[in-house]
This record gives sequence, structure tokens and C-alpha cells, in this order.
Amino acid sequence: MDRGLERTATVRRPTPRGDAAVAAVLDTVGELVAQAPGAEAVGLAVPGIVDDETGVAAWSENIGWRDVPFRALIQERTGLPVAVGHDVRAGGTAEQRLGAARGARNSLVVPIGTGIAAAMVIDGHLCVGSGYAGEIGHMSVGADEPCVCGGTGCLEAVASGPAIARRYARRTGRETTADAVAALVAEGEPDAVAVWAETVGWLGTALAAATVLAAPEVIVIGGGLSRAGDLLLGPLADDIEGRLTFHRRPRLTTARFADEAGCVGAGLWALDLLETQ
Amino acid sequence: MDRGLERTATVRRPTPRGDAAVAAVLDTVGELVAQAPGAEAVGLAVPGIVDDETGVAAWSENIGWRDVPFRALIQERTGLPVAVGHDVRAGGTAEQRLGAARGARNSLVVPIGTGIAAAMVIDGHLCVGSGYAGEIGHMSVGADEPCVCGGTGCLEAVASGPAIARRYARRTGRETTADAVAALVAEGEPDAVAVWAETVGWLGTALAAATVLAAPEVIVIGGGLSRAGDLLLGPLADDIEGRLTFHRRPRLTTARFADEAGCVGAGLWALDLLETQ
Repeated sequence: MDRGLERTATVRRPTPRGDAAVAAVLDTVGELVAQAPGAEAVGLAVPGIVDDETGVAAWSENIGWRDVPFRALIQERTGLPVAVGHDVRAGGTAEQRLGAARGARNSLVVPIGTGIAAAMVIDGHLCVGSGYAGEIGHMSVGADEPCVCGGTGCLEAVASGPAIARRYARRTGRETTADAVAALVAEGEPDAVAVWAETVGWLGTALAAATVLAAPEVIVIGGGLSRAGDLLLGPLADDIEGRLTFHRRPRLTTARFADEAGCVGAGLWALDLLETQ
Repeated sequence: MDRGLERTATVRRPTPRGDAAVAAVLDTVGELVAQAPGAEAVGLAVPGIVDDETGVAAWSENIGWRDVPFRALIQERTGLPVAVGHDVRAGGTAEQRLGAARGARNSLVVPIGTGIAAAMVIDGHLCVGSGYAGEIGHMSVGADEPCVCGGTGCLEAVASGPAIARRYARRTGRETTADAVAALVAEGEPDAVAVWAETVGWLGTALAAATVLAAPEVIVIGGGLSRAGDLLLGPLADDIEGRLTFHRRPRLTTARFADEAGCVGAGLWALDLLETQ
């Protein structure tokens, strides 16, 4: 993107696994730089555990890579300054500087889609924790459900989009999607209402715990589930309110940026590099 | 204290409530400054909700004050630069720079005494959240117990020193202290062992949630309960381990500083003021 944050080139490709995925990332970056003559810096957002400070992607369950020094690799390949970080933190940066969390010194940006994680800003500082901070999707909410991470009762195991669809299907025998469950909730269909209420309770448990620790002024819900809008935010705000006493109340809102949040955030990181040089 | 962190003067007095407490703090600071000729700066640590960035004590349930601008009041009274912050964060600063969390860029310092709270350092930054960050004592752990804060099931309501003693007394009819319960645990007394195991589970629930969000490399347990040493740390480390999967494992240890942690930390804050001037 350019300095006005307008997209100047786009390359999409499927994600292979392991070493092939690393090669695909490097090739994609190379292609984008070639398509954008005069490119001055690179910002890269990746999933999994990644240390934004060192630019090393430590681990991704889904992609299957380990300890990939992306910053060094891309610098070598392009000769440009490179910022590398977590996709969710990139999205958080976009929401914090230009989107729904703008103006807040303390915020939580929580995309809820296939996975769940949080970009956590405290005192204006985006928390990295060597790549381990903000993993709210793998906080136990006490549910009796196995999680892909190997744990039990993680928020993601019961409140991600696929988890909501799976729980509805288990209850009714009808295969569906989280969007369809939300539509049924709006119509008052009892099974959907019950699944939704449980989901809200689990999200409330985790977000209240995060509020107690991180004191966000605003919680921004993103990802596919944010399409439910007030159907989600209304009961969720009530649920969180019921769990707090003297704590500061976070405002709940939906994300401004949809799928492109990570791109915008990584672009902002790249611009930061140019400003600090 | 002097620049070598040696204590040069001490004043102790009982804590009155409300406005009288504010006057007592100001008088005490005045006395200390008078006893230490050449005093260059003041560091003050207070309980409750306090914004270390503005130096305003917003609220304390126990003391009963509200929105006291301590930094401004003390500056006016002494003419010295003043740092004001939370007692638990002051203790955290002492442990982080000179004590059990030294060398860690991510840490949680958790005094467990009459109350429970955490000083949370992420990426080397001590989290303030306008004074609301780190209130782990008032995170719900799902216990069926009312809390002084008005909530139900807060960690503090079941795992503080008085709460442990109360739970043991309720079970056995015998009034006691948390230290005495720990001594009975060491002897294998079944009721004490049961109360302790429950306590460990609740502490593990809250500390695992904090680990998922804040990614501490080390968790420092302070306060009265830390006197139990390995009797607490051993099972607590096992409990937390059982709740984590891909997350970074925190090392558990006890605090270096006991009662004086807050004083040392506030002194370090005062020294910081002199260095940045």
C-alpha cells in the first residue's frame, strides 16, 4: 500500500504447509515488491506464535512451521526494512490507530472466526510477550469440550465460528454455519437461542477475566462472528457487566476493518519503520 | 532511603479512614522529608485503584478515599518531584529490578495476603491501565463464595489468607490462620489438605488465565501465603502445568522482598524521577 494506505498491489495464493509455506511467503513478498516499484519497506503479518520484536515465527499449528526468521529472510531477499508480527496484533494495530479502538490507551481487539485471539493494548503499548500474549482463545472457560490445542474447555473450542456450528449440529442434527445460527437466533428458534446464550456466557467469562487483568476501555469484536452485530454485542455487554464490580467497564463494539485488518496493520508497521529510520 | 537503597528514616502510624487517611499520608510524608535533610524526591505507594501515570488515587474500599490527587498534593507540600502508584505495582517494581523477577521481560508478581492483586510486566512495561490493570484477586474462579467487592467467586474470596482460614474453620469448626493451615498441611491433616488442594486449584485457574493473556516467564508469589514455600509452589506449578498446552511455561518462585517491597519500589520510582530530570 502507499503512504495514503491505499492498496497498490495484491497477490493471493493458497497456503501450503511447512517449508513450502515459508517459500510461498517469500515468493509472495518478492512478487509484491516487484509489482510496486519504489517499495520502501515490508510489513508481514503471520498466524501462530510470532515474536514481533525479533521477527521470528516460532510456531504455527495450522501451517506447520517452526522458528522461521522471517524478518532476516525477507531483508536478505528484498534489501528493504522489514516488520514482522502476528496477524491478530496487526489487525489490532489497524483498529487501534484507524478503527474502532481509536483514541483508547487500553483496548482489546478480539477477532472471532475459525480461531480466537486478542490484540491487547495496555497504556498505549501493544503487548507481545515474545509472541505468547493475548491467547484468549486458549483460556479455559470451564467448558467440557476438547480443543485442537490439546487442552479442554478453551474458549476457542466452544465459541469460534465452527464451534458454534458444531454445537448447534450436535444439538439438532442439522449441519449449519455460525452465520446461519445467528440468523435463527434473530428468528427466536429455541435451539439456536440456547446455543447462542451459552456462547455469550463463555465469551463473557473470558472477556471479563481479560478486563480484570488488562483494563480495556474498549473491546472490539472482529472476525466472522462480528457480523452478528447487536445480536452478539447486546447480550455480551450485559453478561460482562454482570461479572464486574469496581472494575472499569469496557465499551463493546465491532471492528471497522474486516478481512483486510491484518494487511492494514502490517502496512502501518512498515510505515513505522520508515518514520523511525 | 538513600541512593544505595538503604532506609534512612521510618515513620509508622495506624491508618485512619477517609479524609483523615489523606491527612495522615501527607503528614507522614512531611515528617519523613523533615527527618531526611537533603531529600530529593518522594515515592508514594498506596492501595486501591490508583493511576500511576496521573498520581491520583481513584478509590480504596478499605481506606475509603476517592479521587485524591496525591502527586499534586505532595508536590505542593514538599516542593519535591513525586511519584505515586499502587502498592502492589511498587512491590512488583522491587521484585522486577532487584528481586525474584529480575532479568525477566515478562513477569507477574502476586502478593497473596489479606488481598490479592498482581503487578504485571509485559515486554518490560509495568501495566497500569489507569489503575485498573492486574486485579487478579477479583477475577472470578467460579467458586460459590461472595466477595467483599460485591461479586461472587473472586479469587480473593477463596484464596486470600483470611479466606483460607475461614474455609478451614467452616469445615472443621476450628478458628485458625492460613499459616496454621499450612502447618497442618505439612503434617498431612486431611481437612487442611483438602482446603489447600482447593486453594491451589483456584490459584491455578486464575494464574493460568493470566499466563494465557500476559505470558509471564516468571510468576513471583509474595505476601503472607508465600511463607508456605514449596508446600504451595510445588502443587501450584503442577496445577498450572496441567492447564497449559502450547503456552510458554512460567517459572514459579517466592518473593525476595517481604513487607518492605512497596517501600523499595516506591523508592525506585523516586530515583527514576531524579534520573529523568
